[in-house]
Amino acid sequence: MLQEIAEQPAALRKTIAEEGAKVARLGKFLRARGIDLIVLVARGSSDNAALFGRYLLEIKTGIPVSLSAPSVHTLYRARLDLSRALVVGVSQSGEGEDINLVLENARAGGAYTVGITNEIDSAMTGVVEETLLTHGGRERSVAATKTFTGQMLHFYMLASALAESEADRIDYAPIPDWAERALELQGAVAEMVERYVFMENCVVVGRGLLYANAYEMALKLMETCYVVAERFSSADFLHGPLAMVERHFPVFLFAQPGVTREATRALVSRLRELRADTLAITDDERVASSCTRALVMPAGLGELLAPIPYIIPAQLFAALLASAKGLDPDAPRSLSKVTRTL
Amino acid sequence: MLQEIAEQPAALRKTIAEEGAKVARLGKFLRARGIDLIVLVARGSSDNAALFGRYLLEIKTGIPVSLSAPSVHTLYRARLDLSRALVVGVSQSGEGEDINLVLENARAGGAYTVGITNEIDSAMTGVVEETLLTHGGRERSVAATKTFTGQMLHFYMLASALAESEADRIDYAPIPDWAERALELQGAVAEMVERYVFMENCVVVGRGLLYANAYEMALKLMETCYVVAERFSSADFLHGPLAMVERHFPVFLFAQPGVTREATRALVSRLRELRADTLAITDDERVASSCTRALVMPAGLGELLAPIPYIIPAQLFAALLASAKGLDPDAPRSLSKVTRTL
Repeated sequence: MLQEIAEQPAALRKTIAEEGAKVARLGKFLRARGIDLIVLVARGSSDNAALFGRYLLEIKTGIPVSLSAPSVHTLYRARLDLSRALVVGVSQSGEGEDINLVLENARAGGAYTVGITNEIDSAMTGVVEETLLTHGGRERSVAATKTFTGQMLHFYMLASALAESEADRIDYAPIPDWAERALELQGAVAEMVERYVFMENCVVVGRGLLYANAYEMALKLMETCYVVAERFSSADFLHGPLAMVERHFPVFLFAQPGVTREATRALVSRLRELRADTLAITDDERVASSCTRALVMPAGLGELLAPIPYIIPAQLFAALLASAKGLDPDAPRSLSKVTRTL
Repeated sequence: MLQEIAEQPAALRKTIAEEGAKVARLGKFLRARGIDLIVLVARGSSDNAALFGRYLLEIKTGIPVSLSAPSVHTLYRARLDLSRALVVGVSQSGEGEDINLVLENARAGGAYTVGITNEIDSAMTGVVEETLLTHGGRERSVAATKTFTGQMLHFYMLASALAESEADRIDYAPIPDWAERALELQGAVAEMVERYVFMENCVVVGRGLLYANAYEMALKLMETCYVVAERFSSADFLHGPLAMVERHFPVFLFAQPGVTREATRALVSRLRELRADTLAITDDERVASSCTRALVMPAGLGELLAPIPYIIPAQLFAALLASAKGLDPDAPRSLSKVTRTL
């Protein structure tokens, strides 16, 4: 897992080089075709990448996005009218039967279907009209890292390609360099995890473009460290779950630059009053000094490109905490790499 | 909270009597207008009702549903093309500023807007084109119960009114009687909660039409009992979070009749192998006998009408567990009835 985390800058560069032109052509084709709705279909880490994609696509393209409930298709056999929809399946292995069944049904119903996967010869590539590949080689750890950020990158490329106006295009080329800089935090994370070895549960909070990062950090903590990790948007967190927080309750926060800053600062103040034990991944000195601990991200990284670099310290945290607990992050108990559900 | 739980059958009957004809007219109007997309906007318990509504609406109407991410509108100021959309805000108080802002933006962008609320004089009713009220009086407990099931009922009425074919209409009239029968479990729940007084964390699992019940039970446990309660679909649970489960780890399951039965039985077997401590809310004898504990629901209740009756023992469980822990479920620490977020 640590090795695959470190491979991410190279994998991201390769995915841009190999897929960039293809995604640009796809965007042009889809704009000409006319798309009223984008449906994203995924499970697990891939679903967290889709959750990020949802925010980015709506913000940059103005096309409404729906995160699919696979059982509506697979168990209830609903026939949704998706004739003017783009349906995007996301799966590392490309072998998720339920995801592929949704894609098949959507295609039969007139939708244009795209698959984002790491496996060129998977079942998914046979189902969809266009395949977008994440590059950087086979992922061996059960805990997805380089395929997760590769999927996120595809959403950058797709949102940029679908954007109607030049102003909404995204210059995603610097992301691999920012990812490389985020990896420099490994030493700081390795020292910090010692403090959390006996943590049994926690909450992870994110908002807006980094809401999905909270889901992904929580999933990594659950699957590699066996920590009961809740995930919330900072807004939903105030609707009920805040009641759980007592003195020393651990809360992890993504506090990126941009439009969510004020709301995050307010939440940090509230958590300080409640004497929660807070760890922020942030570039904000005010947040860093108000939290119990902080992992300080490089300055100058804007909100739009923050999601991938900001997930890297969280991945490192999960991998190194698992090691500090004497666990093998690459082979979590009870899990296998391909999960079959219908 | 216990009193408001008990008021639900009467509140549901009143909502059907007062709102049924209005919702039927609304459905006819919207079918004539033509709706390509339904967007649901909510937070907290109301968002759990919306999650239920999403499944029901897609299954019964074939219209794709998107659960809105409010910050896309409020913080990122995205202009989504919602000209052929129905946008439904759900809020007990009708005073959620972010929800109302999304409704305002959607209406300005050409969407038809509806509000589901318990407060006829709230800000929400001034924003939307049609208001659907939950009846049964002011909700005094911070933990929503009767407004939650009232919101669910409105989704039954709306899905039925929007359904194109007679076969997809829903006979929701028996729901209040089934809710009344579910209340008979109060004695069994009161005895059972003693076992869970020192439980610190747990997972709640549901699938399909009862996926939202898992979210709602978890939220009730978090806000009234301060238990760290994760919520998953049984399919997503197998993608990673299952690794958390060890001997005696508490897992609550909704095991309703219908299309999810086989998948739920398989999950129960897997949890038995892992020696998890399971409590099922179910009518399925096989599940009940395979779980550590069970709350047995009345037979003869089909899947379609199960969601409201099945949430009632969960509400009772949260209220009675809070009391058994010496907590006041009506006034959770750190919370107020109206949460203001943007």
